[in-house]
Amino acid sequence: MIVGGGFGGMNAAHALAEAPVEIVLIDRTNHNLFQPLLYQVATAALSGNDIALPIRSIFRRKPNVTVMMDTLTGIDRAARAVMLQASGALAYDTLILATGSVYSWFGHDDWQRHSTALKTLADAQALRRQLLGAFEQAERARDPATVRALLTFVVIGAGPTGVELAGAIAELSRLTLARDFRHIRPGDARIVVCDAGPQVLATFPKGLSAYAARRLASLGIELRLNTPVEAVHADGVTAGGETIAAASVFWAAGTEATPVASWLGVPAERGGLVAVAPDCSLPGAPDIFVIGDAARLRGKPLPALGSVAKQQGAFVGSLIAARLAGKPTPARGFRYRNYGQLAMIGRSSAVADFGWIRLRGFPAWVIWSAVHLLLLVSARNRIVVYVNWVWAWLTYARGARVITETPSSEAGPA
Amino acid sequence: MIVGGGFGGMNAAHALAEAPVEIVLIDRTNHNLFQPLLYQVATAALSGNDIALPIRSIFRRKPNVTVMMDTLTGIDRAARAVMLQASGALAYDTLILATGSVYSWFGHDDWQRHSTALKTLADAQALRRQLLGAFEQAERARDPATVRALLTFVVIGAGPTGVELAGAIAELSRLTLARDFRHIRPGDARIVVCDAGPQVLATFPKGLSAYAARRLASLGIELRLNTPVEAVHADGVTAGGETIAAASVFWAAGTEATPVASWLGVPAERGGLVAVAPDCSLPGAPDIFVIGDAARLRGKPLPALGSVAKQQGAFVGSLIAARLAGKPTPARGFRYRNYGQLAMIGRSSAVADFGWIRLRGFPAWVIWSAVHLLLLVSARNRIVVYVNWVWAWLTYARGARVITETPSSEAGPA
Repeated sequence: MIVGGGFGGMNAAHALAEAPVEIVLIDRTNHNLFQPLLYQVATAALSGNDIALPIRSIFRRKPNVTVMMDTLTGIDRAARAVMLQASGALAYDTLILATGSVYSWFGHDDWQRHSTALKTLADAQALRRQLLGAFEQAERARDPATVRALLTFVVIGAGPTGVELAGAIAELSRLTLARDFRHIRPGDARIVVCDAGPQVLATFPKGLSAYAARRLASLGIELRLNTPVEAVHADGVTAGGETIAAASVFWAAGTEATPVASWLGVPAERGGLVAVAPDCSLPGAPDIFVIGDAARLRGKPLPALGSVAKQQGAFVGSLIAARLAGKPTPARGFRYRNYGQLAMIGRSSAVADFGWIRLRGFPAWVIWSAVHLLLLVSARNRIVVYVNWVWAWLTYARGARVITETPSSEAGPA
Repeated sequence: MIVGGGFGGMNAAHALAEAPVEIVLIDRTNHNLFQPLLYQVATAALSGNDIALPIRSIFRRKPNVTVMMDTLTGIDRAARAVMLQASGALAYDTLILATGSVYSWFGHDDWQRHSTALKTLADAQALRRQLLGAFEQAERARDPATVRALLTFVVIGAGPTGVELAGAIAELSRLTLARDFRHIRPGDARIVVCDAGPQVLATFPKGLSAYAARRLASLGIELRLNTPVEAVHADGVTAGGETIAAASVFWAAGTEATPVASWLGVPAERGGLVAVAPDCSLPGAPDIFVIGDAARLRGKPLPALGSVAKQQGAFVGSLIAARLAGKPTPARGFRYRNYGQLAMIGRSSAVADFGWIRLRGFPAWVIWSAVHLLLLVSARNRIVVYVNWVWAWLTYARGARVITETPSSEAGPA
C-alpha cells in the first residue's frame, strides 16, 4: 500500500507495477501535480489542468494498481491497517508513506488566515484570485492609500518558490497588465520579498544567489534579507521592525512534514521528519517505509526536492520487488544522486547549478524550460504548456487570467 | 455605459470603440466566456481558461474603453446612474443592458440546492467536481444501491445544452474512464435525459431531432420526453411519476432573464424579458437599450442564442455611433440574420441546420468543430482547444480531469 501520489508514491508504484503484488495507491486528490510549475498556475500563465494528471489514468494499463481517492487519518500498526476518512480501515502487508510536506505558519493561525500559500492546485487558484483581484479592486478604489496597499505584494520566503513567484508577479504587472487598466498603473506595483536568512536561493552557490538578487532588483523587486517576519495581519506584514501595508501576502516560507510521525507513533525530528534506516524503512519495522519530504536519513540532510522523492520511490519499489522475488537487496541503502538544481527568475533569466557546471541568464533559462517540459508527465501537457510558453514569450500575454466566481446553484436567486 | 461582457456587450463595445465616446464596460466577472463550449469544461475536455478571455486584455488597445469588474444592483433612471455593488453610483449618458439570462428553477429553491446548472465557469467546475467525484465515491462505496445511485446521472432539459452534456457524459464514462477503475465499471453509468416537451432539440427541424434522439439512444442514454420534473431532492429526481435515485442531477432546463425589468421599473414579460422598441431601446427612453437574452422584440420570439446578442450589440453600437455623428439611423430597426444552429451529440456526430441545408453525422460534426474554433476570441485559445480536441480524438483521453480541493490557508492545520 502506497499513501501519496506525488513524485515519491508514483515512482514507487511504477517500480512495483510489474511485480506480483497488489498495489493500492491512496491520495487525497485525484491527480498527480507537477509542483515545480505551480507558481505559473498561480500567476495566470498556465491552467491547473496543464500540470496535473489523473493518477488513475496514469495506471490505466496496470491492472494490479488500484487507485483510491481518500484521506489518511491514522495508522494502526498493531492491526497493520491504515485509517481512511471515507473508506475506514484498510489492511496492508507493506506500507510506503510518501505524504510529503505542508506549509507551516509556525503555529500562527492568524498568519495563516491572512496569507496565501502555494502547495496545491486549489492554493494556486486562490493565489491567482487574490493577485488578479487586487488589481481589479485597485482599479475601482479611489483612496490613494487603499490603492497603494492593493498594489503591494509581499512574498515571504526567498527560496525557489518565493523567487519564482516574485519574478512572475513582477512580469505580470510590468508587462502583461501594463495597458489593461485606466485608473491605475499596474507597473507601479510594489513587490517585496522578505527572508529571515542572509541570501536568496540559499541552497545555491553564492555567485548564483547574488546574480538572482541582482535580477530581482532589476525587475523592481525589493529584497529584505535578514528580515524575519514578526506578524502577518489583515492589513499587511510586520518584518524587521517595519510594517508594510499590503492587501496580498504570499507565504513561501517554512514547510513541515505531514504528521507521519504521530500517525506512526514515533518521535518526530525537527520539521516533523521521521528518522528512517538507510533503506528508508522505519527502524524496527521493515514493512513500513517513509520516503520524500517526510523522511530523514542519517547524514547530511537531503534537499526537499521532487528528485529526492522520485529516487527514493524507485529505490523502495525495487527493494520490495527484490525482497519478494527472494533476490538480494542492496546492502548500502539509498544514495541520492544529485542531478542539480534550477530556479527561474523571469523572462530569459534563470540559474542552474549542476555541480560541475553553473549557468545563469539565458542558457540557464533555456535549460530550465526544456527540463520542465520533459519532466511533465503527459505529452498533451507538454504540448499545451509549450504552446502557452511560446505564446507568452511572443505576446507577453498570459493564457489563464480568469477569476472564477460562485456557482449558480450556490448563489441565491438573482 | 455597457453592462454585461457577453456576446452582446462585447460587440456593442467593439462597434463603439472607434466613435468619440467614453465607454465603461461593466461585468461581474473579469472574463468574456465562450458559453457554447462550457459543457466541455464541465466534462473535463477543456480548461476554463481555454474558453475565457480577460475583458480588459481584449480592449487593451482601445483607450476609450474602461473595463470595471463589478456587479449591477440597480438603476436610478431619474439620476441617470447605475448602482454597483463595490463602486456605488456611476452616471451614464447612454446605457446598454446586455446582462443575459440565468437559470431558473421555477422558484423551487430546493431543486436548485440539489442540482448543478451550467452557466458560468464556476458552474462548470462545480459540475465537473460532482461528475468526477461521483465515480470516485462509487469506486469506494460497497453497497450496490449506493453505487447505482452514484453512477446515475440525470440531465433535466433536452435542448442543446442538455443534449451536449448528456452526450459528453456518455463518452466520458464509456470511453475515457473505461479502464481507470477496479471496483466499478464506469461504462455501466446510467444517463437519463428528461424533458417536459415531446422532442429533443425542439428548435431544430423534426428530422434532425429524431436523428439526435437515435444517436443519444445508441450512446446508451435513456430519453424521457413528455416527462415534466415534479421534484428534485437530495436522493434524485421525481419525473413523470417515477423516482430515479441519482447522486447527480444536472439542470439544463428553464432560463429567465436577469432582473432587468425590475432594475428599470418596467413590467416584465414572460421569462422576465423586457419589451423593447424595434431599435432595441426601451420604449420612451431612447438613451437605454436592452439587448440579448433579456430583450423581447415584437414579432416572432428570437432564440436565446449568442448570435442574436452579437448582432444586436453591433446594431445598437452602430446606432449610437451614427446618432452621435448626426448621421441618419436605420429606420426599420433590428433584423436578425439567422446563420443557422448547431448542436454536438458526440464523437463524429452532430446536427446542423442552416435553413437552406441540413446536415447530420460526420459532416455536421466537422462544421461544428470548425465554427466553434473560429468563434473563439483569441488565437491562443484556438490553438490550445485544437490540440486538446485532436488529442482527445486520437486517445479518448480528456485533458482536464482534475478535481480541486480546499486551499491550504482555508484548511485547518493537518
